[in-house]
Amino acid sequence: MTDGDLEAALDHVRAIFDKAPFVRDLGMTLGAVSAGAVETRLDIGERHRQHHGFVHAGVQATMADHTSGCAATTLLAAGKAVLTAEFKISLLRPAGGEALLCRARVVKPGRSISVTEADIFSIDGDREIHVSRMTATMAIVDRPA
Amino acid sequence: MTDGDLEAALDHVRAIFDKAPFVRDLGMTLGAVSAGAVETRLDIGERHRQHHGFVHAGVQATMADHTSGCAATTLLAAGKAVLTAEFKISLLRPAGGEALLCRARVVKPGRSISVTEADIFSIDGDREIHVSRMTATMAIVDRPA
Amino acid sequence: MTDGDLEAALDHVRAIFDKAPFVRDLGMTLGAVSAGAVETRLDIGERHRQHHGFVHAGVQATMADHTSGCAATTLLAAGKAVLTAEFKISLLRPAGGEALLCRARVVKPGRSISVTEADIFSIDGDREIHVSRMTATMAIVDRPA
Amino acid sequence: MTDGDLEAALDHVRAIFDKAPFVRDLGMTLGAVSAGAVETRLDIGERHRQHHGFVHAGVQATMADHTSGCAATTLLAAGKAVLTAEFKISLLRPAGGEALLCRARVVKPGRSISVTEADIFSIDGDREIHVSRMTATMAIVDRPA
Repeated sequence: MTDGDLEAALDHVRAIFDKAPFVRDLGMTLGAVSAGAVETRLDIGERHRQHHGFVHAGVQATMADHTSGCAATTLLAAGKAVLTAEFKISLLRPAGGEALLCRARVVKPGRSISVTEADIFSIDGDREIHVSRMTATMAIVDRPA
Repeated sequence: MTDGDLEAALDHVRAIFDKAPFVRDLGMTLGAVSAGAVETRLDIGERHRQHHGFVHAGVQATMADHTSGCAATTLLAAGKAVLTAEFKISLLRPAGGEALLCRARVVKPGRSISVTEADIFSIDGDREIHVSRMTATMAIVDRPA
Repeated sequence: MTDGDLEAALDHVRAIFDKAPFVRDLGMTLGAVSAGAVETRLDIGERHRQHHGFVHAGVQATMADHTSGCAATTLLAAGKAVLTAEFKISLLRPAGGEALLCRARVVKPGRSISVTEADIFSIDGDREIHVSRMTATMAIVDRPA
Repeated sequence: MTDGDLEAALDHVRAIFDKAPFVRDLGMTLGAVSAGAVETRLDIGERHRQHHGFVHAGVQATMADHTSGCAATTLLAAGKAVLTAEFKISLLRPAGGEALLCRARVVKPGRSISVTEADIFSIDGDREIHVSRMTATMAIVDRPA
C-alpha cells in the first residue's frame, strides 16, 4: 500500500463516518486509523442504556460493526466498498463507565470477503474493561455511485 | 404456563420496553406477544441509515437482539431476567422500505441458557422482504433488584 | 433452473460426497436432494462420541457444514464451487439415539456469497429430537480444475 | 488457583482426551496445557480432507471446539464440567500442509458460561499459516457421574 493509497483509504473511512446518519446520531467519533486497524469512541449517555442501566448490546454491536467496516475499508482497492455479510458478538461483561473504546482490525483481507475482529472496552476512570468481542465477515462490493 | 404466569411475563416484557432508553430512543414499538414469541416494529427514518442509505446493521442488530430478549423473557421463571451472552446476525439483503418488522421466537428454553432466533423483514408497500436473521444465546440470571 | 441445470447440480452434489474422504470416513450418507435443499444421515457409532457419551459437537458441525455446502451447490452456476467462509452452530440438547438426520437449505443464494441454514435431529425410535442448528456463510468461488 | 487445583484440572483435561472416542479416532494429540490455555496437534492424513483436497472444515471445527472445551476445563471448579453451547468458526484460508496446530484460551471465565477463542495454524515445513479462528460459548454444568 502506497502513501497515496492509504490517504485515499483514510478519506473513504472519514466519509463513512461523516455520511452515516446512525453513527453520527449515536455519537461515535473516529480515533486512530491505520492500514487494517481503526479505533472509535463513544461517550456513554442515558439514551444508550438498556433496562438494567447497562449499555445496550445493540449500541455495542453498532460500534463494533461500523468500526470493523472502517478497518476493512482501509485495505480496499479503488472503486470498492464494504457491506457487512454477518457478525457475531460475545457480550463478556455488563458495560458501564464513562465511555466505550472500540479497536477493530482486519484478520484476513480478501478480494470478495474480508474477516475482521473488534474489541470493545469500557473506560471507567483509569481502567479499561474488556466488555465485548466481535468477529465479522465483510463482503467486498463495487462502490455505489 | 398458567394465564397468571403469562400475564406476569407480558408485564415484564412491557417493562423491558418502557424502561430501556435505547429502544425508546430508536423508536421501536412492541407488537404481538405470546409465550415464546414477540413481534416488534420500527418506522424507518433518516437517522437509522448508514452511508449508502440502507438501514444500518446496528439498527437491525439492536432490534433483533431486543426482540429476542423479550421472547426469552416470556418463558422466564419468576425472579429471573435475561442478558444477551452472544448473537450472530446475517444481513441477507440491503434493508430499505418504510418500516422493519421483527419476529423473534425461543428455539430452546433452558434454566441457565435460552436459544432464540429472529427474522427482520423490510416492509415496502405490500411487500415483506426478508433482510436479516439472528441466532442468539441468552443467559438466564437473577433479576436485579 | 431447468431440469438439465438441476441434473448437473445433483451430479455435483453426489461428487462432493463421493470425493470427500472425511465425509465417507465419518459415515454420512446422502438423502433427498432438491433445488436449494439437501438431507443427509449418519448412523451413530461409538467412535462419534465425546467423553460423556454424547455425539461430539464436531461430528454435528461436520454434518451440518457439509450438508449446507451441498444445499448451496444445488443452486450454483456452471463452473462454480462452494467454500465455507464461516458457520455458527448452536448445540441445543445433548445428542444421542441411533442416527442423526440433517436438513439444510439455502436462505439467500447469491453470486459471491450464499447464506444457508441446517438443523440436526437425533432419531431415537419414532422420535425426532432437534439437537442443533447452524447458520453458514458460503463463498462462491471458481471451481478448481 | 493452587498447584493442587491446576493438577486436578490437568487430570480432567487428560481424561477428556483419553475418554473421547471421536478425538482419539480423529488423531488429535494434547500439547501444552496451562491455566486457561491448551494446545493440540493433528497430523493431516488423507481421510481428513474434503473433495478439493483441503482439510475439511468439520475437522477444524472438531479440533477448535475440543481444544476450547479443554481450555475452559482448566479453570473449572471441582464437580463441574463443560458442554459447548455454541461456536462460530471463520475459515480464513484453505488448510493444507503436514499438520494442524490449535491454540485455545479462555477469554472470559464464568460460573455458568465461559467464553473461549481458538486459532488453528497449518504447519507446512517451517511455516505456520493461520487457517481458522473460533469463538465459543461454553456452558458450565454439574459433572456427570
